[in-house]
Amino acid sequence: MELTQQLARWAERVERNLDLYLARESNLEPRLLDAMRYALLNGGKRIRPALVYMSCELCGGTPEQADRAAAAIEAIHSYSLVHDDLPAMDDDELRRGRPTCHIAFDEATAILAGDALQCFAFELLSEADSGQDASTQLALMRILATASGARGMVAGQAFDLTHVGKALTLSQLQAMHAHKTGRLITAALLLGATAAGCRDDATLERLERFGDLIGLAFQVKDDLLDIEGDTLTLGKPQGSDVAQNKPTYPALLGLDGARSRLRQLHEDALTALAPFGDRAAALNALATFIVTRDH
Amino acid sequence: MELTQQLARWAERVERNLDLYLARESNLEPRLLDAMRYALLNGGKRIRPALVYMSCELCGGTPEQADRAAAAIEAIHSYSLVHDDLPAMDDDELRRGRPTCHIAFDEATAILAGDALQCFAFELLSEADSGQDASTQLALMRILATASGARGMVAGQAFDLTHVGKALTLSQLQAMHAHKTGRLITAALLLGATAAGCRDDATLERLERFGDLIGLAFQVKDDLLDIEGDTLTLGKPQGSDVAQNKPTYPALLGLDGARSRLRQLHEDALTALAPFGDRAAALNALATFIVTRDH
Repeated sequence: MELTQQLARWAERVERNLDLYLARESNLEPRLLDAMRYALLNGGKRIRPALVYMSCELCGGTPEQADRAAAAIEAIHSYSLVHDDLPAMDDDELRRGRPTCHIAFDEATAILAGDALQCFAFELLSEADSGQDASTQLALMRILATASGARGMVAGQAFDLTHVGKALTLSQLQAMHAHKTGRLITAALLLGATAAGCRDDATLERLERFGDLIGLAFQVKDDLLDIEGDTLTLGKPQGSDVAQNKPTYPALLGLDGARSRLRQLHEDALTALAPFGDRAAALNALATFIVTRDH
Repeated sequence: MELTQQLARWAERVERNLDLYLARESNLEPRLLDAMRYALLNGGKRIRPALVYMSCELCGGTPEQADRAAAAIEAIHSYSLVHDDLPAMDDDELRRGRPTCHIAFDEATAILAGDALQCFAFELLSEADSGQDASTQLALMRILATASGARGMVAGQAFDLTHVGKALTLSQLQAMHAHKTGRLITAALLLGATAAGCRDDATLERLERFGDLIGLAFQVKDDLLDIEGDTLTLGKPQGSDVAQNKPTYPALLGLDGARSRLRQLHEDALTALAPFGDRAAALNALATFIVTRDH
């Protein structure tokens, strides 16, 4: 199956599940639920859920085993976008061409919807009827919690905020992205494997390494697209990073240096999964997509 | 031991633990950790952790068994205060006589610190070295997650926000408080019992009922104090609820009606725990404190 078909299939699956799971939340305050649905069912690419499903499949698991973890990681990702867009943070009024949550609702509702979405992720993973044994559920929660908070994603966001307009070293830039976006991508891979019942350290380490590499590759490619891409395809003004004096890989490594780094990351990612042979085909295709995409 | 001594003992214990647990979070962004510490180690009364410890003790558990749950519920409570105080929410500049988190730091940091504190609660409960078996840890996570999100606390906050200045029926007022504050109080009791290894439905139901009753009693008493108390003892202007036209129990039940409701709630709370005899002494003393306090 082509990668785009696979991505569409997993996106459809996680959206159907999110819709079902959300229906069970409280009806005390319909506006809160509306805002959660608005933020969650927004036509995102669902890369993180796809990684959960693909990793679960690689480890011999079924999609059913990965369903809650896939929904949970998307809930975490969505809450982080809702809070990132707030006036006190990035102050964005549009996301994927639609008004952001605090514009469509109001700021207080957006704060609470984000809070509820984070909690929703942990509700999903702790449910009694998940079909997973307790130690698997607990392992899933540990992976997601560690990746999301002050040891993971939120630390990256906080670092980003306090360094706006400041020069960063290459290692600072890498650490920022590793926390801000990398931890959830790696967590997605570990969640999928764990949901499939995999407890093999060597397998988990390979998936973790693959996650670290494609997370970084994604960011390097993003920076390159800002220079190489055209505004129409990107959906944002070409050159906006340079204009805003954002720290980027091309700025730190030079254009050729960044391109060569991207090739190396891609190669290393494929190497990390080589022992899995054809079972890694979907994840490999995703890695290749990340480094060759034009937007 | 006197109730005040017991409360001081549990407060000291949970604060020492929170301090230890926080030290293990990321050092990528020290300002984020500073804001988390500021919000968490703020001299609160630590009623929820005390309920966890007392309920655990009632069920024959040790304080060690309750440590992580006590810390986790306080982290949830703290995050909710940080977000509640934000300009888009209650816009409060002072809490317990100190600048609120977004005043002491900044709004973006306060949003992120709240987000990280919520995640921190689930990190604590999912840790591998907690000394609890996986099914107990999972049950603790389920109790806390269900009580905190769109089925619990956040739903109550959202309802409160959308009903500012509007008339509420008695059942709406009760539902609002049951979600906004009641769910976490009841969760504290269930967490303590579960941490002690209690799986007896009758015991859990009695503790849940006790929690519902004292949660409601706390709110009725708060409303009465606003009318009966004096400004100096309360720490806020006496009569401020009436002045702000807030829906209160005295407004809906009359002053005598509210007092009589409070007596009934107190009596019912003691009755709920009667089968436990002396083992319920600490919780009973806390219930009595709630309805007789003068601030």
